[in-house]
Amino acid sequence: MQRRGKTFIVSGPSGVGKSTVLKALFDQRTDLYFSISATTRDPRPGEVDGVHYHFIPAEEFHRMVEEDEFLEYAEYVGNFYGTPKKYVDRAMDDGRDVILDIEIQGANQICAKRPETVRIFIAPPSWVELERRLTARGTDSQEVIQSRLLRAKVELQTASSYDYLVINDTVEQAVAEMAAILCAEHCRPAERLEQLLHK
Amino acid sequence: MQRRGKTFIVSGPSGVGKSTVLKALFDQRTDLYFSISATTRDPRPGEVDGVHYHFIPAEEFHRMVEEDEFLEYAEYVGNFYGTPKKYVDRAMDDGRDVILDIEIQGANQICAKRPETVRIFIAPPSWVELERRLTARGTDSQEVIQSRLLRAKVELQTASSYDYLVINDTVEQAVAEMAAILCAEHCRPAERLEQLLHK
Repeated sequence: MQRRGKTFIVSGPSGVGKSTVLKALFDQRTDLYFSISATTRDPRPGEVDGVHYHFIPAEEFHRMVEEDEFLEYAEYVGNFYGTPKKYVDRAMDDGRDVILDIEIQGANQICAKRPETVRIFIAPPSWVELERRLTARGTDSQEVIQSRLLRAKVELQTASSYDYLVINDTVEQAVAEMAAILCAEHCRPAERLEQLLHK
Repeated sequence: MQRRGKTFIVSGPSGVGKSTVLKALFDQRTDLYFSISATTRDPRPGEVDGVHYHFIPAEEFHRMVEEDEFLEYAEYVGNFYGTPKKYVDRAMDDGRDVILDIEIQGANQICAKRPETVRIFIAPPSWVELERRLTARGTDSQEVIQSRLLRAKVELQTASSYDYLVINDTVEQAVAEMAAILCAEHCRPAERLEQLLHK
């Protein structure tokens, strides 16, 4: 009996280096599936359908909402974004673990539907370091940086309800912890006992 | 702030290869502390005090029971065996993870006192394989082997209440899973948020 994949939500504040950690994880673990969101907004130059997003018409999005085909969805400045169940379920059926890069509200929606989903929060090693990283990007004004820092502190309050908190001190260490969490979560008795019953 | 160690209980049926897995884990992770039991029985030839057991007089054992100095204890054919708190606590204070090789009743006693203790059950890949391993040891009669197998099946019912179930198919894989579990358990938000608050 092939083991089924599991779903892992990864959240973290702006500037924490979540994309870098996930990229390094996917370089190392080609068996993982990265969930791609569906959206009603138009593609930007360079964005590819099925790679950056599944670009779908608003009517199709609304039909999918009606028929409960999303794990979670939200509206953001007039456009809709959502996580279609079908790709996630197909990957898990194929035995692949699914990674969802998603913020806290979306994570809550998913866990209400599927409490077995594992939630990982990526945190900075310190507030000073997060401020340094946000400043080093050079994309935001001091005012925006300060508002991002404040938001990060609020988000970290929520992290206590997550299953795991990975501190992105070095990317290498953060990726090792992510890999350990994925491995450990497949050692849960419910999954393992079912496998043993068939032997 | 140095991270504090955690306690991990490892249980598993006779013949599953628990000692082999633990030996391989300790060869790889010299930072771990293996908890040594105290006992009132006499040392057997070759047994060293403080290595195989802490050999202590019965009066001392009873005083320790009275003063709640054991994490768990039990009587077995007229002798007492117990896990003294002090060595476990000292190792954790030093930042070392503690491994307790202990059976299910002892595990239950410890978790009633310290619910944060992590329980790992080591299971065989199949019943056929467990029978093969018990037979290969060449130490037991067919009757004893059948009774061990039956007991293993009963014990496996309890494994569903454990936090993790590691299947000892190959020692290498089992050790990798143990190491992943130890790593993942140090990514719990309660521990991590406390560290972050100090930065």
